[in-house]
Amino acid sequence: MSLPERVRIREVGPRDGFQNEPEVIATDDKVRLVDLLARTGVQRLEVTSFVRADVIPQLADGVEVLRRMDVPDDVDVTVLVPNERGFENALALRDRFSEINCFMSASESHNKANVNRSVEESLVGLERVIGRAVAEGLRAEGVISVAFGCPYEGHVPPERVFAIAERLMAAGAREIAFGDTTGMANPVQVGAFFRAARAALGDEVELTAHFHNTRGQGLANVYAALEAGCASFESSFGELGGCPVPAGATGNIASEDLVSMLHEMGIATGIDLGLLLDAARAARDVLGRPLGSHTLVAGPVAWNDERAPTA
Amino acid sequence: MSLPERVRIREVGPRDGFQNEPEVIATDDKVRLVDLLARTGVQRLEVTSFVRADVIPQLADGVEVLRRMDVPDDVDVTVLVPNERGFENALALRDRFSEINCFMSASESHNKANVNRSVEESLVGLERVIGRAVAEGLRAEGVISVAFGCPYEGHVPPERVFAIAERLMAAGAREIAFGDTTGMANPVQVGAFFRAARAALGDEVELTAHFHNTRGQGLANVYAALEAGCASFESSFGELGGCPVPAGATGNIASEDLVSMLHEMGIATGIDLGLLLDAARAARDVLGRPLGSHTLVAGPVAWNDERAPTA
Repeated sequence: MSLPERVRIREVGPRDGFQNEPEVIATDDKVRLVDLLARTGVQRLEVTSFVRADVIPQLADGVEVLRRMDVPDDVDVTVLVPNERGFENALALRDRFSEINCFMSASESHNKANVNRSVEESLVGLERVIGRAVAEGLRAEGVISVAFGCPYEGHVPPERVFAIAERLMAAGAREIAFGDTTGMANPVQVGAFFRAARAALGDEVELTAHFHNTRGQGLANVYAALEAGCASFESSFGELGGCPVPAGATGNIASEDLVSMLHEMGIATGIDLGLLLDAARAARDVLGRPLGSHTLVAGPVAWNDERAPTA
Repeated sequence: MSLPERVRIREVGPRDGFQNEPEVIATDDKVRLVDLLARTGVQRLEVTSFVRADVIPQLADGVEVLRRMDVPDDVDVTVLVPNERGFENALALRDRFSEINCFMSASESHNKANVNRSVEESLVGLERVIGRAVAEGLRAEGVISVAFGCPYEGHVPPERVFAIAERLMAAGAREIAFGDTTGMANPVQVGAFFRAARAALGDEVELTAHFHNTRGQGLANVYAALEAGCASFESSFGELGGCPVPAGATGNIASEDLVSMLHEMGIATGIDLGLLLDAARAARDVLGRPLGSHTLVAGPVAWNDERAPTA
C-alpha cells in the first residue's frame, strides 16, 4: 500500500469558515487573512461565495474581497456559486478567480432542507452552471454533501453519490469533492468509498475529500482516503467553519492539523506550516476566541517544548 | 488487510485524567465517576497511582478510592506503581486490583526529567517490582513513554523501545503499552512500529497503544495501529489528562471518540457508548468546564439532530 507522495489542498476557511461565524468579519480583516493564506504555499484558496447577501450576510462583501485581495498567480482561487444568478454575478469578477465550486446534497431530504430543491432540480441547475463555467474557461468542481451519511436519512448508498458525480462530470466538472457534512464517516467506510469512487468515475476526474472532525475522526478519515489513493483535500485554517451540528461541535478539519500530519508522514503539500500557523493565529486574533485547531496550540512536532510530561 | 473484530480498552481517566487536573477532585466525586465508568462495559480501569502524596496530591486519596469504589468483578482494575515503595503500599489493597502498571521512558533525557533515573536504573527497579507483582499473582503491564518520539531527543529508534520491552517481558510483564507521550506519532510510523513490535516481541505479549491527540492525529494513529494488528488501547473519558504539553494542548484521546469510531467501523469494544457519555458528562459537571471530547458535544453518529447544515 503506497500513499501519494504529494497532495493538493484547497483552503476553504475564507468561504466556509467566515460564512459560519456569527459576527460578520470586517472586509479589511478578510482581505488580510486571504493574503496571508495565499502566501503559505497552498495551491487553492476558496475565497468567497456568490450567494444572496440577505441569506448569508457574512459573505456580502465577497466582490470587494475578490477585488482587493493580493493573491499570487500560481494560487488557484475558487468561488462558490450556488446557482445561475450567482454565476452571473461572479462573471463580473471573472479575472479574479479560476475555479467555481457548485454544491448539492446526495440525499433528497438534506438537499431539500439546505437549498429547498429536489436532487434532480439541483442537478439540472448545476449542469447549466457548470456548462456555462466551462464555456468561460473556468474549472468546475462539484461538491456532493452528506456523501458519507445523512443526518435525516442515515446511510447514503455510494452508488447514488457516484450517479450524481457522473452527471456533474458529464456537464464538465473536472473535480468532485465528497463532503462528510455532519461528520458521520469512519475510516473503513472512507477507504471503501474512495476505492469504489475511483473505479466508478475513472482516472481523469480529481476526487477530493472534505472531512469534518465532528467526532474527532477527521484525520483518521484522511489517512484512510490517502490509503485509497485520494490525493486532494479540503480543510479550513484554525478549524473554522463546517457549519457545526449540533452547535458547539467541531466542523471542518483544521488545515494546520492536516498539513502537520501529512508532513510528518513524508507527504508533500507545498505549504509552509509556520506561515499557515501565522495565518490561523491572525484569524484567532480577529475572532478573539480560542480556535479548535490542535497544532495551533501545540505547535509542530519539532516545536515540542522543554517541559517533561509524565507517563 | 483485516482489522481486529474486537479490541480491549483500558480507561485511564481516573488515574491519568484526575492526576493532571490543577484542582484536586473530591474523593466522593472520584468514587462516583469510577463507579459510572465501571458500568460502561469497559474491561479495564486504571483507578489510581501509588505515588507519593507530596509529589501528586491529586491522587493522595488513592487508597480510599480503591476501598470505596464498587466495581463489578469482570472489570480488571489497574493501579500505577512507580517503584518498590509504591508497590508495597499497594499490597495493602491487594484484593482491590488485579493489574499493576509500571512506566518508564524510552529516552534517557525524558526518563531523567520525569523520574530522575537513567533508563538502566529504571529498568532494574521495574524488573524487581514486576517480579514481585507476578509472585503476588498480579498481572503486570509495562508502559514505555515517548516510544514514538521524545521532545528532547527527537527520533527514538524502535529497537531501543523493543529492547526495553524485552527486559520488562523477561521480568514477567504480560502487556507492553507504547505511549506517544507528547503526540509526535503519525500513522505511517505507527503502522510500521506495531508490525515491527509484533515481529520483535512475539505473539504472547499484549501490545497496547496509548496515543495522544496533541495535533489532532490521535484517532488516525488508532486506525493505523488497528491495521497493523493492535487490538488494545488506552484512552481517557472526556479527553482528560495526558499531561498536555504545551499547556492548553490536548493530551489523551477521548474514550468516547475512540469507542464511537470503533463501533462505526464494526469493531466491538463491549462498551455502551451512551453510558460512557454519561460518565464523561458527569466528569464535565464535576470539573465545571467544557472538555475536549468531540463525541461528548456532538453525540453518537446516530444522534445527528434535525438541523440542516449547509455544504
